[in-house]
Amino acid sequence: MIEQSAFTVEPWCLRECNLQLDLLAQAESLFALSNGHIGWRGNLDEGEPHALPGSYLNGVYELRPLPYAEAGYGYPESGQTVINVTNGKLIRLLVDDEPFDPRYGQLRAHERELDFRTGLLLRKAEWVSPAGQAIRLTSTRLVSLSQRAVAAICYEVEAVDDPARIVVQSELVANEQLPDPNGDPRVAAALKDPLIPEAHGAYAATADLVHQTQRSGLRVAAAMDHTVEGPEGTRTTSESFPNLGRVTVTTVLHPGQRLRLIKFVAYGWSGERSLPALRDQVQAALTAANHTGWHGLCAEQRDYLSDFWSRADVEVDGDTKIQQAVRFSLFHVLQAGARAEQRAIPAKGLTGPGYDGHCFWDTETFVLPVLSYTVPSAAAHALRWRHSTMPKAAARARQLGLHGVAFPWRTIHGEECSSYWPAGTAAFHINADIADAVIRYVAATGDTDFEAGVGMELLVETARLWCSLGHHDAQGRFRIDGVTGPDEYSAVVDNNVYTNLMAQQNLDAAAALVEKHPDRARELGVNAEESARWRDAARAMTIPFDDLLGIHPQAEGFTRHQEWDFAATSPDQYPLLLHFPYFDLYRKQVVKQADLVLAMHLRGDAFTAAQKARNFAYYERLTVRDSSLSACTQAVVAAEVGHTELAYDYLTEAALMDLKDLENNTRDGLHIASLAGSWLALVAGLGGMRHYRGVLSFAPRLPAGLRKLSFSIYLQNQRLYVDIGQADARYTVSDSRPLRILHHGTPGVIFPHQPLVRPIPPPPHALTDPQQPIGREPLRRRRRRTQE
Amino acid sequence: MIEQSAFTVEPWCLRECNLQLDLLAQAESLFALSNGHIGWRGNLDEGEPHALPGSYLNGVYELRPLPYAEAGYGYPESGQTVINVTNGKLIRLLVDDEPFDPRYGQLRAHERELDFRTGLLLRKAEWVSPAGQAIRLTSTRLVSLSQRAVAAICYEVEAVDDPARIVVQSELVANEQLPDPNGDPRVAAALKDPLIPEAHGAYAATADLVHQTQRSGLRVAAAMDHTVEGPEGTRTTSESFPNLGRVTVTTVLHPGQRLRLIKFVAYGWSGERSLPALRDQVQAALTAANHTGWHGLCAEQRDYLSDFWSRADVEVDGDTKIQQAVRFSLFHVLQAGARAEQRAIPAKGLTGPGYDGHCFWDTETFVLPVLSYTVPSAAAHALRWRHSTMPKAAARARQLGLHGVAFPWRTIHGEECSSYWPAGTAAFHINADIADAVIRYVAATGDTDFEAGVGMELLVETARLWCSLGHHDAQGRFRIDGVTGPDEYSAVVDNNVYTNLMAQQNLDAAAALVEKHPDRARELGVNAEESARWRDAARAMTIPFDDLLGIHPQAEGFTRHQEWDFAATSPDQYPLLLHFPYFDLYRKQVVKQADLVLAMHLRGDAFTAAQKARNFAYYERLTVRDSSLSACTQAVVAAEVGHTELAYDYLTEAALMDLKDLENNTRDGLHIASLAGSWLALVAGLGGMRHYRGVLSFAPRLPAGLRKLSFSIYLQNQRLYVDIGQADARYTVSDSRPLRILHHGTPGVIFPHQPLVRPIPPPPHALTDPQQPIGREPLRRRRRRTQE
Repeated sequence: MIEQSAFTVEPWCLRECNLQLDLLAQAESLFALSNGHIGWRGNLDEGEPHALPGSYLNGVYELRPLPYAEAGYGYPESGQTVINVTNGKLIRLLVDDEPFDPRYGQLRAHERELDFRTGLLLRKAEWVSPAGQAIRLTSTRLVSLSQRAVAAICYEVEAVDDPARIVVQSELVANEQLPDPNGDPRVAAALKDPLIPEAHGAYAATADLVHQTQRSGLRVAAAMDHTVEGPEGTRTTSESFPNLGRVTVTTVLHPGQRLRLIKFVAYGWSGERSLPALRDQVQAALTAANHTGWHGLCAEQRDYLSDFWSRADVEVDGDTKIQQAVRFSLFHVLQAGARAEQRAIPAKGLTGPGYDGHCFWDTETFVLPVLSYTVPSAAAHALRWRHSTMPKAAARARQLGLHGVAFPWRTIHGEECSSYWPAGTAAFHINADIADAVIRYVAATGDTDFEAGVGMELLVETARLWCSLGHHDAQGRFRIDGVTGPDEYSAVVDNNVYTNLMAQQNLDAAAALVEKHPDRARELGVNAEESARWRDAARAMTIPFDDLLGIHPQAEGFTRHQEWDFAATSPDQYPLLLHFPYFDLYRKQVVKQADLVLAMHLRGDAFTAAQKARNFAYYERLTVRDSSLSACTQAVVAAEVGHTELAYDYLTEAALMDLKDLENNTRDGLHIASLAGSWLALVAGLGGMRHYRGVLSFAPRLPAGLRKLSFSIYLQNQRLYVDIGQADARYTVSDSRPLRILHHGTPGVIFPHQPLVRPIPPPPHALTDPQQPIGREPLRRRRRRTQE
Repeated sequence: MIEQSAFTVEPWCLRECNLQLDLLAQAESLFALSNGHIGWRGNLDEGEPHALPGSYLNGVYELRPLPYAEAGYGYPESGQTVINVTNGKLIRLLVDDEPFDPRYGQLRAHERELDFRTGLLLRKAEWVSPAGQAIRLTSTRLVSLSQRAVAAICYEVEAVDDPARIVVQSELVANEQLPDPNGDPRVAAALKDPLIPEAHGAYAATADLVHQTQRSGLRVAAAMDHTVEGPEGTRTTSESFPNLGRVTVTTVLHPGQRLRLIKFVAYGWSGERSLPALRDQVQAALTAANHTGWHGLCAEQRDYLSDFWSRADVEVDGDTKIQQAVRFSLFHVLQAGARAEQRAIPAKGLTGPGYDGHCFWDTETFVLPVLSYTVPSAAAHALRWRHSTMPKAAARARQLGLHGVAFPWRTIHGEECSSYWPAGTAAFHINADIADAVIRYVAATGDTDFEAGVGMELLVETARLWCSLGHHDAQGRFRIDGVTGPDEYSAVVDNNVYTNLMAQQNLDAAAALVEKHPDRARELGVNAEESARWRDAARAMTIPFDDLLGIHPQAEGFTRHQEWDFAATSPDQYPLLLHFPYFDLYRKQVVKQADLVLAMHLRGDAFTAAQKARNFAYYERLTVRDSSLSACTQAVVAAEVGHTELAYDYLTEAALMDLKDLENNTRDGLHIASLAGSWLALVAGLGGMRHYRGVLSFAPRLPAGLRKLSFSIYLQNQRLYVDIGQADARYTVSDSRPLRILHHGTPGVIFPHQPLVRPIPPPPHALTDPQQPIGREPLRRRRRRTQE
């Protein structure tokens, strides 16, 4: 947990007013900069103190053997782990004889600020060396959203009281020493010295390093150039070694004098291109950055973000903390996906090595819904990356004895990297999640080229998977046995409702596309018999229901299991998976994360309102939220069934997941999906937005503490602005086309220049608040606010 | 598979007439000698050629870390692996300048014979060296059943045509080079040089070595002494090194002259005793052996076995192959258990390193039923070993959040060593299997001291386990969810019928003992409330039944799963676990080994005859017998439901499992449980013996090919001799007490000196033969016999 006072509450930035050494690790993640291609953790410029230095390139990984004490057929033999690439953000500072290090001397002031509108990480410090020499320091860092190979730093030192001899060493460092990881399985496996030096060089104020990874065979190049402004006599030299490029600037500063160093860094990597080609590519990027110049890069950054906020901003009136959190969230979601460009969006973005840098279903289910309605090009890129891994997914399906494609549970490059199959390979729902993201992206954008191309291939091959994975029973019901749903406290179950409903949608959508694009269908080898089988499987899909309890069991038999003994579980035994064996978790009614409740969000069309209310209450009692992928979904469904204040609580939890370090692992990187979830909790939760089968609907309702919530979404290039108050909601379109929506179930048409205003009805029933497991209630937002 | 002609068919021995280098590995297992404490594989005396040298001491293991790519709470961190201890059977032979090695020169004759009545492994060879020197060789080897620390070899060399210079090196070798293991998970993990030298010495014709294991900290001592008889001029020297003790005998033999070396070897090991203490212990054992002398040891061995065969022999008239196989089986079962004396009986006995030398449920469920009625003291020892591990099983239960004890799925020393929990820890039935073995042992022996002591503690603590593992559902049914039954092609299922029925018996029996021994119950902290809960849980136990199919599903939901596509599975895809992922196996109707069918054997009182017939037919269609623990049970139940010829087929498969190497892994050691299963298939199968709730019953019926089957069992120190013909069965008691039995359901009393003779009724119904999966039918014994 991060204490209240660590960061200020401001609507457009995250500000840390003092350097807090005990929060160094979390701050490194929170202040991380990324454009989806390059990621730099928020390490101090001088390198130390640090918790975990981190520089990442999307797609750069090393292989490591996956050990098994008892091997089994089809277990992946090799894992992929994101590696810490060449560190280009290091700028060491020597003041007289002493290295600038806040742990020594006296740090009079230290402030950091991540500005969501400029995309800059600003830092100001005033430090007195142990020998009594005072200096002022400012640094501004960016990872360019407009030039994806480029990052830059403006670093300024000023003498305060006495003349100071200053040495600045700006470096590229490969194979940095990293701290030993702890035993938490969620933390990345360490890889020592993963980069083999290939070439290095230095001249004038530049240096470059080229390396290759040993087993994955990827070539990584980094280069830097500098602009130096200082008093007369300032000298610049450069040198290079296999793992070190260094540009050194020396000067003597008199009080009021200032040394200013602008560092441009360019990165490139490839599994194919030769050393000279890659070196040239990086030099070219560096030249372009130099030509644009520092101010030019800052201006491009601001323009890029200005456009983004005009499309995607969410305004929350009445709760500045949530306002800040949702912008922080959107900023980081953008950073993760903006320029990924046919690479994966990992669970942690490029903010840390958590989960080995792997991409999971998080992307399609939580991140792409945000991007599809705000930055659809980024959503398309992410899906094109999935599509590019289809040959590997097809090979995996064949290995498992299945047709179509079986996408990996966790991967960087496309191969399955999960070594515990009951929680990995068996989680087949990822295939339907990808299909769901395709369907949503096409519905949001109307991108028919994508639909008939990449989209249709993904839907057809995943439909084939479901058809071979399931089977008909003697009564003709289509069953999907032995799979794992989203809830990781159950595994290898029969007819998980979430999986079956998502597969049903997948099969239906594939059949519909076959009808719509018959030529493409022929190209993909689909005939009428095959698509008829898909429709039949979808129609006959088994959806278990417990008549006695009047609710949907999460999977067949679930409601007959013993309920977890929450009363006997102490607060320090959460997360349960670190204190109880899977054996025990799997066999009891205890839910790590929304599963049936997620089905009610994504396939709400398959449930009645009464079922939703009963189901929600039932699963609330069992859900411990040991996963960051739960609170946002609980917010969405709580809002739908009328628990508006509870939705507000869950929304808060999702929004503050990292700002408060609620799961105590923000050090390893941010929870990108949970950040995206704060948008979902607001837009799909309080805003009640749904988009089933092409019908866009809203059911807005605000908690008492909020005055207003407004947001924009893009629907087929048309901007819809939704402005929700306590009493009514106002819908405005920016385009010349009218737009049909449902407002709380009632159809309405929004005409251009004529906002649709509709009153907000009272909540559906007088529902009593559902109970959560003892000690696992979300913090009440209203109570919290009075404490703030 | 081993071809027909490799061994002769003889009733009282296993004879190999020629040395077959391609069957070396299998022969090493088949010719292994053991007394349950020491195990020597049937390696050639000269050491090479070999497939796998093996010398084992029951309980001597090394620890090895168990690696996990994704760790989990409660996973065992350390495994235990049997190690190859000091090899005391090596006697190298140099003829003139050439080592005796059958791969060179000419092997004129080579015969080996394992004699089940003498317990000796005899070997005769005639060899011409590459230089043309002919010699005759005989060796006789024993591992003493009477002196458990002792083994001995009588080794004789004779010159044939010309004078020969002979050097014999009799050795103790530690840390032998072993061949690399292959990738089969069932093969033991290799441990290189596991023994650290501590002391060594040599004088006269003796040598000894003392070592310690590195991580498990066990001290192992081996010593040897020799008696040498040779022509004048025969010289003997000795020497020792850290890993080698050597006694060298040199002589020149003229044609007809003979060198005779008798080697006595003694072993000792301890985790507690000091080096001098252990060294003295081994020297004392050696002195005793020397004092007994070679002929004395041979005589003791014969006496021991004569007593055994008088108690345990099974006579099969009409099928010599089965006659040989069942005696081979009983001989090896005896070797595995005879002198284990409060150590485990491992799955492979001490015949090879397979399964890491671990002990599983095999012991209690397959081996102890044989021993309980033939050598009950050995059964008691095995159960006392289990009892000695209770503190570890109690700690494991607590780690898993359970009460009572949770015995390990696989272990040497008592700690859980299974690294794949769905097929290990989740197989909780092992606890009920242990209880079952206790109940059977007490019923067989009437050993009330054992019952009130060790037996009651085992039953009470396992009953506590079941009570905490299960729970009552809303309708008051007692459920045991998320466990794995015997069939390893299903895992983590709800209400496995086998598990629930065995737990039910466990709970009932514990409650009955509490009633019978109230003082002991108080000592164990059991009050009336607790035992009432056990009775209630037993009474309310969920036993799923599929009304539509009219059969018991193996576990809840099993019969709704898709059936395995046997038609699409080619013969080389068996065993399935090496060619298909667990994921696929678990979710389909395919059975590796008898599970529901085993329940019908062990808890036959819980099924009607009609249920048994329907269930058997249903599961026959799904059972692929990829485990050696299936054929014998299928034989037992096939016989009961009236498929006598099919029972004969399965009996044959169980009996020939190792003699024919049917699972292609006899090289790693014998399948002790399947060997025991050949007794079960005859006695419980064709003999129809059952012993439920103190009632002994028989339902004998022979297949057409057998004239007679007779066997003895011991019931409370009374010998019952059963003699079954085609038309009737004759029951005789040796004691003065009359004995009540059921014969085909009809009560009868056997009076002393007055055999009970009863006719054998025709089979229950005119049943059509059940089907097996395509290509997995057992070989038809009748057809085989015409080919033989």
